[in-house]
Amino acid sequence: MDLNIRYANESDMPEVLSLIKELAAFEKEPNAVIITTKDLINHAFSKTPLFICFVAVLENKIVGMSLGYPRYSTWKGPTMHLEDLIVTSDKRGLGIGQALFSNFIKHSQLKGVKRIEWAVLNWNVNAIKFYQSNGAKVYDDWNVAQMDESAIHKFIKNN
Amino acid sequence: MDLNIRYANESDMPEVLSLIKELAAFEKEPNAVIITTKDLINHAFSKTPLFICFVAVLENKIVGMSLGYPRYSTWKGPTMHLEDLIVTSDKRGLGIGQALFSNFIKHSQLKGVKRIEWAVLNWNVNAIKFYQSNGAKVYDDWNVAQMDESAIHKFIKNN
Repeated sequence: MDLNIRYANESDMPEVLSLIKELAAFEKEPNAVIITTKDLINHAFSKTPLFICFVAVLENKIVGMSLGYPRYSTWKGPTMHLEDLIVTSDKRGLGIGQALFSNFIKHSQLKGVKRIEWAVLNWNVNAIKFYQSNGAKVYDDWNVAQMDESAIHKFIKNN
Repeated sequence: MDLNIRYANESDMPEVLSLIKELAAFEKEPNAVIITTKDLINHAFSKTPLFICFVAVLENKIVGMSLGYPRYSTWKGPTMHLEDLIVTSDKRGLGIGQALFSNFIKHSQLKGVKRIEWAVLNWNVNAIKFYQSNGAKVYDDWNVAQMDESAIHKFIKNN
């Protein structure tokens, strides 16, 4: 299999956005993606990049990607967060996800982080099994809390 | 009430670490904190700070803090993460948590983020009610996945 994992570059961002949208649809939020290719380029390739992105290239075509950024634990210290790990649907089962995951773990380890962390939907049993088989622990006692732009504006208006 | 919310400085880090340890004990992980005051100073007051920290000062004593850092949503764009929000146990119920939370939301809004996000333990009903009353949504369908240093090393050895 002619698979290559490499750093994403600016010209990959249209394919990266397609993969983001494919994952959002899989996660039952097809209309949640408001980000654009231009946003991704601005956010990843500025002087202070907001994330790092790797792409999986199979026979000269982008078929998957991983994307993450540094976080911080007040218990342990610097960590890495894996925001997205995606392989396009017709290329699953070939080990591409494993190659992307392995690449991301190795990249993070070289940064000297104390922990790598991410979120997984509790009904995504295949993903949970995949992560556990790679040595990750999956916790179901933490909930995610969020305020979106509209909640933020409403809060600011009232406080 | 003579309450002031201000940016933390280096000399506040011993009190900030005490609050981190108090929260870890409340979250039933009293031994999870391996970070030191020196680590916190290095990570917050370097050329590229890993987090921002605010302290609540009541009658010249630090009685609470908030701590967070930028994250990124591939659906929305730049976000802020609230890692910790703590008020020391004998100063709860006075509105100090609300003042710290409000300060953090306003700080984040000035950064132009698309979302503010954090994690809350699913049994911490008071915290969940507090966040919801401030307009946050709390989701129970995401699990947290983590690899600690030992899991990372084991993975690297085998891959």
